[in-house]
Amino acid sequence: MQSSIYLNSVGVVRKSADKVLIEIFDEFTDALLGLDGFSHIYVFYWFDQNDSAEKRETLQVHPRKDPDNPLTGVFATHSPQRPNLIALTLCKIGSIIGNKIQIEDIDAYDGSPVIDIKCYIPGSVLDADVRLPDWV
Amino acid sequence: MQSSIYLNSVGVVRKSADKVLIEIFDEFTDALLGLDGFSHIYVFYWFDQNDSAEKRETLQVHPRKDPDNPLTGVFATHSPQRPNLIALTLCKIGSIIGNKIQIEDIDAYDGSPVIDIKCYIPGSVLDADVRLPDWV
Repeated sequence: MQSSIYLNSVGVVRKSADKVLIEIFDEFTDALLGLDGFSHIYVFYWFDQNDSAEKRETLQVHPRKDPDNPLTGVFATHSPQRPNLIALTLCKIGSIIGNKIQIEDIDAYDGSPVIDIKCYIPGSVLDADVRLPDWV
Repeated sequence: MQSSIYLNSVGVVRKSADKVLIEIFDEFTDALLGLDGFSHIYVFYWFDQNDSAEKRETLQVHPRKDPDNPLTGVFATHSPQRPNLIALTLCKIGSIIGNKIQIEDIDAYDGSPVIDIKCYIPGSVLDADVRLPDWV
């Protein structure tokens, strides 16, 4: 049975000509304590520009918008059209000043709602053990 | 400014003595097309047992519940107490039959709501470039 879940954004992506910032809202700044010990973070944001019933009902796409790629289920892609519009990007931290995390880059728009940040800890998956389809 | 966001679960974690399954709800099964080309997936689920105001207001924890670890902001951890209760685990696929993905293991409870699945594509971050705090 489906259950409905509520999120609140915890910050916002700020992109300008010379820098990319994750700006965390004041009430969540305490959640950044110790983040400066890490070099990389996972940034979770929301594909808010696709928050329509039509785009959330899209279950299959041609990956990378290339019609030569086979029709593929969105759970087998990182498509910005999917039932829950969660985006995940691994980012390198430049600096953290107050509630602002400067990062090298992110494939989000200026103004995208940030919904979570997690530290990046390298895992135990070896590249040699990873299998990928041809379109990747 | 905060924005409120709605998710619907797309499936559920099923754990039994002999196997671990991600069971995708029928209406989302088409989103699995082509997933069998991948060896690993990111499973996004919801820490539903912590969905209380108190636990969602927890901004700092001692990582791994070890009081010897320094008090740390939840965004610098993978703590199951955080403003948005998103869990992320990288899982190895065993088999995919219909709407059921058998995986090796997941640090979720039986019944945890699944909110997204994404294919795993190895990234370009080299372990040598990763910096971590002492508690990790």
